[in-house]
Amino acid sequence: MATDSGTGAERLASLADERVDHRFKGLPPDADGLTVGELAAQRRNLFSGGFTTPVLALSAERLEHNLRLMETYSVRHGLTFAPHGKTSMAPQLFQRQIEHGAWGITLAVPHQVRVARAFGVQRVFLANEVVDAAALEWVSAQLAGDPGFRFVCYVDSVRGVELMDSALRGSRRPVDVVVELAAGEGARTGVRTEEECSAVADAVAGVDTLRLVGVAGYEGEVPDADSERVRGWLRRLVALAVDFDKDGRFDGVEEIVVSAGGSAWFDAVADVFAGIPELSVPVLKLLRSGAYVSHDDGHYRKITPFNRVPEEGSLQPAFRLWAQVVSRPSAAQAFVNAGKRDAAYDLDLPEAQVVRGDGGERPADGITVTGLSDQHAWIRTDEGVELQVGDWVGMGLSHPCTSFDKWELIPVVEQDGTVVDYIRTYF
Amino acid sequence: MATDSGTGAERLASLADERVDHRFKGLPPDADGLTVGELAAQRRNLFSGGFTTPVLALSAERLEHNLRLMETYSVRHGLTFAPHGKTSMAPQLFQRQIEHGAWGITLAVPHQVRVARAFGVQRVFLANEVVDAAALEWVSAQLAGDPGFRFVCYVDSVRGVELMDSALRGSRRPVDVVVELAAGEGARTGVRTEEECSAVADAVAGVDTLRLVGVAGYEGEVPDADSERVRGWLRRLVALAVDFDKDGRFDGVEEIVVSAGGSAWFDAVADVFAGIPELSVPVLKLLRSGAYVSHDDGHYRKITPFNRVPEEGSLQPAFRLWAQVVSRPSAAQAFVNAGKRDAAYDLDLPEAQVVRGDGGERPADGITVTGLSDQHAWIRTDEGVELQVGDWVGMGLSHPCTSFDKWELIPVVEQDGTVVDYIRTYF
Repeated sequence: MATDSGTGAERLASLADERVDHRFKGLPPDADGLTVGELAAQRRNLFSGGFTTPVLALSAERLEHNLRLMETYSVRHGLTFAPHGKTSMAPQLFQRQIEHGAWGITLAVPHQVRVARAFGVQRVFLANEVVDAAALEWVSAQLAGDPGFRFVCYVDSVRGVELMDSALRGSRRPVDVVVELAAGEGARTGVRTEEECSAVADAVAGVDTLRLVGVAGYEGEVPDADSERVRGWLRRLVALAVDFDKDGRFDGVEEIVVSAGGSAWFDAVADVFAGIPELSVPVLKLLRSGAYVSHDDGHYRKITPFNRVPEEGSLQPAFRLWAQVVSRPSAAQAFVNAGKRDAAYDLDLPEAQVVRGDGGERPADGITVTGLSDQHAWIRTDEGVELQVGDWVGMGLSHPCTSFDKWELIPVVEQDGTVVDYIRTYF
Repeated sequence: MATDSGTGAERLASLADERVDHRFKGLPPDADGLTVGELAAQRRNLFSGGFTTPVLALSAERLEHNLRLMETYSVRHGLTFAPHGKTSMAPQLFQRQIEHGAWGITLAVPHQVRVARAFGVQRVFLANEVVDAAALEWVSAQLAGDPGFRFVCYVDSVRGVELMDSALRGSRRPVDVVVELAAGEGARTGVRTEEECSAVADAVAGVDTLRLVGVAGYEGEVPDADSERVRGWLRRLVALAVDFDKDGRFDGVEEIVVSAGGSAWFDAVADVFAGIPELSVPVLKLLRSGAYVSHDDGHYRKITPFNRVPEEGSLQPAFRLWAQVVSRPSAAQAFVNAGKRDAAYDLDLPEAQVVRGDGGERPADGITVTGLSDQHAWIRTDEGVELQVGDWVGMGLSHPCTSFDKWELIPVVEQDGTVVDYIRTYF
């Protein structure tokens, strides 16, 4: 159990006491002043309960399905799971991920760690370099104040080690770090060569404010990624851990961290990590996939590893963005009241899936989102398509990370439209 | 004065009582628990006061300059100003815009109107169609509860009028509407032809829940826009007002609303609206430009009308996003810790402008942002450029709307780095 029962749990519970008001778009205006818990207890219907458009809905059943599937997957493959929390930045989902077996939560930047800590997350894997003195001083204070707090972050330069050491002088506990191996030349962060990795590890060994506990990286940035290139890089990462261990670089640690795994190649991670040989101490094989929690109807639908291993299950897209037709100025055009402020648009445009109008719900055949303004989606309708002002259009989204971050309080909706909960995000 | 001194003003003042905590990225971790007012009173320096990266800064001087400039511009051209509030969604800025002579605030969707009303804005121009029954019932209640509340929105279809009427039956006050004239065939919302405009106006006349008060549109969507085409469309809009007036469609209103004007063509709006002939009652020439408040270092820098009329002044880009170099894996690459969650990326990438390192601040010559991940910016450095892990990179942004919406509490920073205030946004 990686959240404690102290302040964090209380704060999590207190989310139900927050007031529903102007801060939260899409929620019923007539619920203004109710607490979130009171509104949830009313079990309103998303379509008839006074919700206003646009409104993003998270499927209760699909969310649960996805949580279970990645729990099962991790267990089956002997992987420890630290789902990337940057995706949702929702402490309630962090909690459910932990209840579904997650070791802890992966995060990308220190301000995200502050959110996780505020809600009692006890194990954080920060999959990024941190050299910010103010942030490191805060981490140091968190470590000093809570013996149960486990924190690991990346290092990829001698200069970074020096800056960390400078900020952490006098800390009660050292900060655990892993050397980040870059996914290739021209890839994102991370040390480019094994030789440089050793130099960075030497630098870590030379300061007492840091402790080297493993190696990590992100196979999602392997140039011209395919199954073979990704596996090749993962084998380099494993070899680096083996060499570091042979060189005695992990002497004194209780376990060696070897971490990789976004949402596109976790099947390769499972395969290659299964072959990690016995090292001097147990190995924590840390998988970090985050997008699975909502999955999507676009980019991640195309790239999910479950397409290659369908016998292991399949994720379900859990988001549907509802917007209303406000204008139908010609037979070929319609406009709904959701735009760049409401929908992800960095990888693909939203996909019109269903229409709710006078005659109930029907497939959105012949209805295509062609563009987004700040507050409108542009829709093209094929000849003869019936779509009228007032209809609600349900859309699938592409990219969970840029969907969650446009909504601060997201209704969780059961199949029949009943809203059973609300998920708070902090971006 | 378009904000009252009641609950709205109190709520505005109470923003200073909000607690600084994990909700607000970039703020100093050691300020946790202070109120926003207490932190502002400390007048910390952005670069030495414990702020963490990434952090978005709004220039105090440039903000004030821009507020004054558009006030002067509107007065000089006899335009009433209702700046588009969707840009910032910051009640403190709404208030300052009103103090700088704005008639009220333009908004795009009903949930934005809820924010404005919560903070006491008394005049709202909703530059969009609204057919959502729950939202209209809320508007109706706001009108009934506050005789001083002025609200105007668009209509562009007979069906829309019917839906509005159905939702507003029994309302104490009618909702004021303007017919939206589309900017052309294939443009965004709005009635395509003058004949159809008359049909929509007839429909409005046929219900007692609505009152026709004018015409409006958005010249920013004129297809293949140039100065002549935009002026041509603006003349169509004015002619529509004149015709409606001749037909007695505005009988009984105190003033006729004629509204246009985004951030690209307000010089054309000023020209054409100067030629509006005398009508049966006074004309409210409503300009709605919103991006000016922060202006930008990209798209709006290129398209601002002040480029054509430099003798009338110039807007100043007021945002600078600060991020820190966390990785410098090769001579040609660097990575800072700000990404899609922090910077606008829909129109242009951020522009590296300055670097702060060991030797103070210097121009970011030879430093180019080439891409954004969720939480990183990819930077290319020319040969010989010195940029090291730990340096802060100050970046200009393109598109105010998608910059504001990534930050909930934005430090307002004076030229010397002193943080004098914090702007709260509600998206």
